[in-house]
Amino acid sequence: MVRVTVWNENRHEKNNPVVGGIYPNGIHGAIADFLTKAGFEVGTATLDEPEHGLTEQVLNQTDVLIWWGHLAHHEVEDSIVDKVYQRVLKGMGLIVLHSGHASKIFSKLLGTPTGQLKWREADEKERIWVIDPAHPIASGLGEYIELQQEEMYGEHFNIPTPDQLVFVSWFEGGEVFRSGVTYHRGQGKVFYFRPGHETYPTYYNKEIQKVIENGVRWAVPSQTAEPVYGNAAPLEPIKSKPYSREVTEI
Amino acid sequence: MVRVTVWNENRHEKNNPVVGGIYPNGIHGAIADFLTKAGFEVGTATLDEPEHGLTEQVLNQTDVLIWWGHLAHHEVEDSIVDKVYQRVLKGMGLIVLHSGHASKIFSKLLGTPTGQLKWREADEKERIWVIDPAHPIASGLGEYIELQQEEMYGEHFNIPTPDQLVFVSWFEGGEVFRSGVTYHRGQGKVFYFRPGHETYPTYYNKEIQKVIENGVRWAVPSQTAEPVYGNAAPLEPIKSKPYSREVTEI
Amino acid sequence: MVRVTVWNENRHEKNNPVVGGIYPNGIHGAIADFLTKAGFEVGTATLDEPEHGLTEQVLNQTDVLIWWGHLAHHEVEDSIVDKVYQRVLKGMGLIVLHSGHASKIFSKLLGTPTGQLKWREADEKERIWVIDPAHPIASGLGEYIELQQEEMYGEHFNIPTPDQLVFVSWFEGGEVFRSGVTYHRGQGKVFYFRPGHETYPTYYNKEIQKVIENGVRWAVPSQTAEPVYGNAAPLEPIKSKPYSREVTEI
Amino acid sequence: MVRVTVWNENRHEKNNPVVGGIYPNGIHGAIADFLTKAGFEVGTATLDEPEHGLTEQVLNQTDVLIWWGHLAHHEVEDSIVDKVYQRVLKGMGLIVLHSGHASKIFSKLLGTPTGQLKWREADEKERIWVIDPAHPIASGLGEYIELQQEEMYGEHFNIPTPDQLVFVSWFEGGEVFRSGVTYHRGQGKVFYFRPGHETYPTYYNKEIQKVIENGVRWAVPSQTAEPVYGNAAPLEPIKSKPYSREVTEI
Repeated sequence: MVRVTVWNENRHEKNNPVVGGIYPNGIHGAIADFLTKAGFEVGTATLDEPEHGLTEQVLNQTDVLIWWGHLAHHEVEDSIVDKVYQRVLKGMGLIVLHSGHASKIFSKLLGTPTGQLKWREADEKERIWVIDPAHPIASGLGEYIELQQEEMYGEHFNIPTPDQLVFVSWFEGGEVFRSGVTYHRGQGKVFYFRPGHETYPTYYNKEIQKVIENGVRWAVPSQTAEPVYGNAAPLEPIKSKPYSREVTEI
Repeated sequence: MVRVTVWNENRHEKNNPVVGGIYPNGIHGAIADFLTKAGFEVGTATLDEPEHGLTEQVLNQTDVLIWWGHLAHHEVEDSIVDKVYQRVLKGMGLIVLHSGHASKIFSKLLGTPTGQLKWREADEKERIWVIDPAHPIASGLGEYIELQQEEMYGEHFNIPTPDQLVFVSWFEGGEVFRSGVTYHRGQGKVFYFRPGHETYPTYYNKEIQKVIENGVRWAVPSQTAEPVYGNAAPLEPIKSKPYSREVTEI
Repeated sequence: MVRVTVWNENRHEKNNPVVGGIYPNGIHGAIADFLTKAGFEVGTATLDEPEHGLTEQVLNQTDVLIWWGHLAHHEVEDSIVDKVYQRVLKGMGLIVLHSGHASKIFSKLLGTPTGQLKWREADEKERIWVIDPAHPIASGLGEYIELQQEEMYGEHFNIPTPDQLVFVSWFEGGEVFRSGVTYHRGQGKVFYFRPGHETYPTYYNKEIQKVIENGVRWAVPSQTAEPVYGNAAPLEPIKSKPYSREVTEI
Repeated sequence: MVRVTVWNENRHEKNNPVVGGIYPNGIHGAIADFLTKAGFEVGTATLDEPEHGLTEQVLNQTDVLIWWGHLAHHEVEDSIVDKVYQRVLKGMGLIVLHSGHASKIFSKLLGTPTGQLKWREADEKERIWVIDPAHPIASGLGEYIELQQEEMYGEHFNIPTPDQLVFVSWFEGGEVFRSGVTYHRGQGKVFYFRPGHETYPTYYNKEIQKVIENGVRWAVPSQTAEPVYGNAAPLEPIKSKPYSREVTEI
């Protein structure tokens, strides 16, 4: 059984009654709910728990980690980010949601300042178009997902070229955005999925839930041998060759 | 005129007579020589200069930076790495050579522990096969470059999926390696090229020189507008929509 | 249950006693055997059956088609190739093995003369290195698969840039080859896997079997809606704009 | 000097007074004009000329071919398509514009039914966003190109995963589209660029012209050796190995 840990900053829910009203058990609670119903073994972890709830034991028993954060990315301790980073390189799947784009872990794994994008809170319509209908993360969807109101994220989004581009969003106000992108990092798989601003009930949307479920299945660790790095003995005999170190062209 | 800065750790040349004999003016000197002949405006910088020779002025006047380092990656100050990182994101090309794979700047830009690979010093033969004959970096080459003796680097090489794979090396001892890979990062372009162990005269090889010249031309900054990030006004009017925040599915 | 059809030219087995000795039930029989044991619902089809065994009914009930052919690619009727092509675009997975690289269907789907590569029959050693340890097709493998004797295939291999590069082979005689590559085409997924020359018992190798099993799971059709093409009504009202067709710059 | 041939169907210009008014010398004439001013050596060719103007001599003296077609794709003879196909594989650059997406040559090179997309003629606004600001094809542009009125092309666009995604378009009516995509095919480079419906003066737009100029420079043939295909002698001696063809697992 695939073991999922849903990590959430869990601050908006406490400080903003609108958010608390939409997500009375936290965004993590809402996500954990539908993933449990989908047949996954789900735990949660939040910023204000000791070690942000991401102890070594929790991480070692997590196949896929889901990450939602927004205003307190800087409060996530570097030592925990490093542990998550190492676990992803060793195979743990990572699904980064919405404003998690600016998290330390996402930027560290991608190598660019992934917090850089355009944004706007204007209750505008988003259409998330399926660009790659062969991709398992798009399974079960129609041609696009329509969200009546969401926060806008627009290009340029400062990410590396994705390994795979699954979704591109259209926004009412005139922007486009690469909303679903995947990457391999070491033995691990990373999926970023854009929607989910805290003031909208996005994570109750059945199609959004479907994408996250698909993402979990896609991100499950492969059981490939851990690569061996460093000084290596030859697998084949190496012939001694006549060779002169004289450099005649200087 | 394209302005190139060749950065070199420049320690082997001083400490190892074999290396000093091959590269009396340093690896940076040898590279600067052939790039100058190729028509570029070339400067050099080395680890032991103040600010490692990479002052803000030098960086601001560099279109393409070449990086060779090996044993002293940890001596490169983070503040300088950060400046190089920011310059690449703003468009400066970066060509990382050989053991520069383990440099702070390469790992930071790529997001993986790029120091991880297999290696062996056994004077073995390397064949660098052209995988993408349409790529400008392969221009002027035959089907492969043969080096009679080089250090072996073998897979798995812990890099992200390259944007483009230009070369794959064959080694006598039984390994293969992605020897020429390219990436875009922000407005900048990054090219990694494998050969160039300090105890061999690799940078005097005409075909190796051709690849580095091609790489410089390929990595020249594009004159695209710097993206604007952050809160953005709508480009189109956003309609007000009837919308209820009641969440009925909880 | 995933439904697999194994297609085989099935000529070498009849004409060459060595091949017939290794694969008394045909290459298709050997592949069908291990895939059945792996839990798939497997059928077979061969060149000399009516419609090459690929009737519309068979194709419509196939989730993943496996293709082995060699000397008789030209005998495969274009009308059948077209049916397979349409099925792949609608979601059927396709796994092309070894000399199937030169098949009509592979070339048609990829857009290049995929028959173009280097080859040699010299009983030489092949090492198939895992380049992407995060990929599900590499699951369960070590760092490489070693085949004591195989036919050599070498670069340049005239395929488009793969969506994903899973394996690269090393050959004793000095060549490298992109041995495991994936592509999406329409709603369908395509995986090419190099090994399997008819005069070697390659398809009895447990690791080779594991790769093909992984490939089948990876290639299973996604249940995404079939895209609608053609003239489309606007989803949002289009404003009439003042616009002049006067062209002032001529 | 880079030699460009601009190929145009050149039917709308004769049959539709609106188009003839915008492009009195044909779409090919307008494109040839600005490319000549940009310093290229430019010729033109059209459907109704003998061999569609694409004689062997013309093709052999063309570095980059530009293709605009719409309603008469089926009138382009297969023998000419084959010649263009072979030339691209040998290095000639190909830039396919707008409705050229449905041309025989584009589909043949890409391997998918590239004619499949959504479209609408409704005088709607298009914004072509720069997705990859490091790409040379985006050089000299701002963050997006705005066209007040264009035909809409919408996803899903049935192309293979692009090697590089340079532009994504936003349309007023609710769609998005991968408007600038690149591919390598053999030794040749292919760039598709969306805008240019015949009833709008799109090719007089300075930014659109800039993209096509950049595209020509990007698509110039690399001078890499033509790969040698077929039976190959070993580069290294192959050891004879004890080997038994007995198959024990049957």
